[in-house]
Amino acid sequence: MKKGLFITFEGSDGCGKTTQLEKTASFLKENGFEVVTTREPGALDIGKKIREILLHHKGTVADRCEMFLFLADRAQHVETFIKPALGEGKIVLCDRHTDSTIAYQGYGRERDIKLLKDLNEIAVNGLKPDLTLLFDVSTEIAQKRVGNEKDRMESLGTNFFKKVRNGYLELQKENPNRIKLINANNSIENVFSEVKNIIIELIKNK
Amino acid sequence: MKKGLFITFEGSDGCGKTTQLEKTASFLKENGFEVVTTREPGALDIGKKIREILLHHKGTVADRCEMFLFLADRAQHVETFIKPALGEGKIVLCDRHTDSTIAYQGYGRERDIKLLKDLNEIAVNGLKPDLTLLFDVSTEIAQKRVGNEKDRMESLGTNFFKKVRNGYLELQKENPNRIKLINANNSIENVFSEVKNIIIELIKNK
Repeated sequence: MKKGLFITFEGSDGCGKTTQLEKTASFLKENGFEVVTTREPGALDIGKKIREILLHHKGTVADRCEMFLFLADRAQHVETFIKPALGEGKIVLCDRHTDSTIAYQGYGRERDIKLLKDLNEIAVNGLKPDLTLLFDVSTEIAQKRVGNEKDRMESLGTNFFKKVRNGYLELQKENPNRIKLINANNSIENVFSEVKNIIIELIKNK
Repeated sequence: MKKGLFITFEGSDGCGKTTQLEKTASFLKENGFEVVTTREPGALDIGKKIREILLHHKGTVADRCEMFLFLADRAQHVETFIKPALGEGKIVLCDRHTDSTIAYQGYGRERDIKLLKDLNEIAVNGLKPDLTLLFDVSTEIAQKRVGNEKDRMESLGTNFFKKVRNGYLELQKENPNRIKLINANNSIENVFSEVKNIIIELIKNK
């Protein structure tokens, strides 16, 4: 069934992954590829409704309830959006996917990493990225880039940021073939030149 | 933390469990126990919103999305409602719980039973019923009792009903100490007299 390519863009807030995703989409389109861009969580209608539940719920939302709601969103996104696009031979670029959950919920919030990995396996039902680009950035540069949203990052705290970054780096060590580490402290153009080389290599070897 | 008693009422549509749950609640209250009655799915606000998503969603809802949404509802119900009530020493009577999921989704719809069991373990996070009353009823009597709702049952089909019933009986064999099998073909009063004996025994041995 799967004929396209599934590429995920990962990294802490302020790492520049969304900009790089857009540049990648343009580059691939210019070269004649059919490209679809998407993001997690909340790309689809059902995901937006789930977000509404989480945002507007009065009282406590149990950790495991929240976790299952995010998994529901992912399962729907994978099954009804990503897999069909791949089946049509498209290149799907996704802003955050399972690695975000492990890095943020598992490492950042110190929830059960093994459990999160197992549940994500179930949610994605056999789908694995062909490539994950991990944009690694220092705390200082990330905070500078987040700019207007700085409050949100500061409220999470530098310590949280460090735990998330460390989580991503652990995941990269565990999956060196799938996850390519990119030094995202450099300029947009320098980073993109690296992204381009990795993607050209991937398409060549397909 | 847990001091109360958690009792679940299970069985196919038309088995009479809801009537028996109400009679049990009255009986226990008359005898001075603090009783809470509840049901799954959809007892809480968050569960109602999840139901709305499932009912009003245009297009396909992926199987795994639906499954995770129900698990989210269960996790929230267990963590924010059942466990606190048990912590206060109450007797919680719940109309359908995990066994329903296994019997209906697993056996009835022939989804992955092992997966459903594992995920339910995660959703309930250590909670197990002290007692499950399984009301077993023949297809004919169930269909007669469902009455006005007969259409719904017939649309599911006799074959579906048989698979669900068989699923419940399998679960009972696997958990003979927790799940007590009750012949629910008898009259309401005869069935309730059996229920009462089992519950008195449970409270005595607590």
